[in-house]
Amino acid sequence: MKCYYCNKEAIEEAYGKAYCEEHFIKYFLGKVRSVIDKFNIRGKIAVALSGGKDSSACFHALNKFKFDLLPFHINLGIKYYSNKCQVEAEKLCNLLGYDLEVIYLEEYGIDLEKYEKPCSICGTAKRYLMNKFAYENNCKYVATGHNLSDVVTFAMNNVITGNILNFRGNKPFLEENLEYKLVAKVKPIYYLKDKECMLYAMINELPYAEEECPHAENAPTLRLKRWLHEMETEMPGMLLNMARSFWRIEEKIREEVNLNKCIKCGYASYGKICKFCKLRKKC
Amino acid sequence: MKCYYCNKEAIEEAYGKAYCEEHFIKYFLGKVRSVIDKFNIRGKIAVALSGGKDSSACFHALNKFKFDLLPFHINLGIKYYSNKCQVEAEKLCNLLGYDLEVIYLEEYGIDLEKYEKPCSICGTAKRYLMNKFAYENNCKYVATGHNLSDVVTFAMNNVITGNILNFRGNKPFLEENLEYKLVAKVKPIYYLKDKECMLYAMINELPYAEEECPHAENAPTLRLKRWLHEMETEMPGMLLNMARSFWRIEEKIREEVNLNKCIKCGYASYGKICKFCKLRKKC
Repeated sequence: MKCYYCNKEAIEEAYGKAYCEEHFIKYFLGKVRSVIDKFNIRGKIAVALSGGKDSSACFHALNKFKFDLLPFHINLGIKYYSNKCQVEAEKLCNLLGYDLEVIYLEEYGIDLEKYEKPCSICGTAKRYLMNKFAYENNCKYVATGHNLSDVVTFAMNNVITGNILNFRGNKPFLEENLEYKLVAKVKPIYYLKDKECMLYAMINELPYAEEECPHAENAPTLRLKRWLHEMETEMPGMLLNMARSFWRIEEKIREEVNLNKCIKCGYASYGKICKFCKLRKKC
Repeated sequence: MKCYYCNKEAIEEAYGKAYCEEHFIKYFLGKVRSVIDKFNIRGKIAVALSGGKDSSACFHALNKFKFDLLPFHINLGIKYYSNKCQVEAEKLCNLLGYDLEVIYLEEYGIDLEKYEKPCSICGTAKRYLMNKFAYENNCKYVATGHNLSDVVTFAMNNVITGNILNFRGNKPFLEENLEYKLVAKVKPIYYLKDKECMLYAMINELPYAEEECPHAENAPTLRLKRWLHEMETEMPGMLLNMARSFWRIEEKIREEVNLNKCIKCGYASYGKICKFCKLRKKC
């Protein structure tokens, strides 16, 4: 199959068009640009690097747009996994000429290995630390490597588990609320699927950790993601429509929540003490 | 495998329990009763019989609860299909000792065969005629044979096509609004899956048409339903959770719409003239 835009051999197809390497990269960056333009992203961005393919692709793409970027990595302290992730994030930063800031979860006294179900703890900690890092470093945004596959899987998992009232994160952009030290959040690769991020990382020979987190290995969300991709293969565009639907649903059902300032750390909290400070207390 | 409640051979499993024929029937009727009790259904019910397994099972189950039932059938005038459906609905009524009222879509001047995509026309016509029939016959409710599989497939199809703002019909019960001649709607088999309705119909040897509507044969919703059932097999309870999620979402996002009385027929309408009267005018 030939590329839709030139005569070279196509390597990928998306929404009815075939792409050669060069035009696939243009397609990929065009999708990133559409998020940047739609939400008028201008200013310093803290870029969360997990060490995986998605955040590597996200960082590499943002770097093409000449933003003021501050890459950082949260070392989660998970044996045989976290250090590998950090190494890959460091390699990528070396390659692109950045220093990598590393935050160690251990330094906050949190040991994920002690929990039977560490995933929600990990989520709380990452959300908190990402925001804190960006805020303290005068960044206007935190950029994360959540892609289309992630967003739809996460939302569908909420539907499947009946966890509807906790519907959030379905949108590519979340406004800042500086009174409560909340930095804006952006998902630059929101419109791109797993496979496309992988391909972008491979074409650009980006270093990334191939390992899945050991705690996620049997997660029902991985099975769900596989199904969603199978369905997408038969109904191209389904994932995108789903993401938009969940995004619109989120806008309709999110109720105004009363934010407080955590009495311990001063960051945004639903209760008197924020989830992260409660977590630290337990440890 | 033995029945969870007795020592007989099990014929079906649901949510971790195995059932013999006798206890499966009890399980099925228990699910119907839970809808009746939850929404306090009391009074005359117009029961829509399509001739298919679901509405047959629904009618048969309601008949067990000694309601005042008025079964009716809408003959859609679809060649090689509608007459077969009517015959099966008649057989069922004979069996249970009821007369079947038949409404002919043809008498309203609507010929579905003339449309390239007749499904939405058919939906509009059925919704209108079901309500009108129930209202004119002093019924407090219309009962339809929408089951769990239908409800979840319909809602997911809305998500997949991005048709979120038209989110409706995800709830087992819709209140009456008699000022606008709107009768309450109930889905007695809301908690039961396709396979369970089929089994109920087979055990009770109910007559029903096995044919799919020729216009639905290649519908993407059939493919979607297959997927959802495959997922349900691996994650039992998923469909139920999804139904509840969509039900809750519907409650959150449905906006108040200004109802009018159609200037032609006097029934509820969003505009000056209702969709059904507009449809008749076009024919």
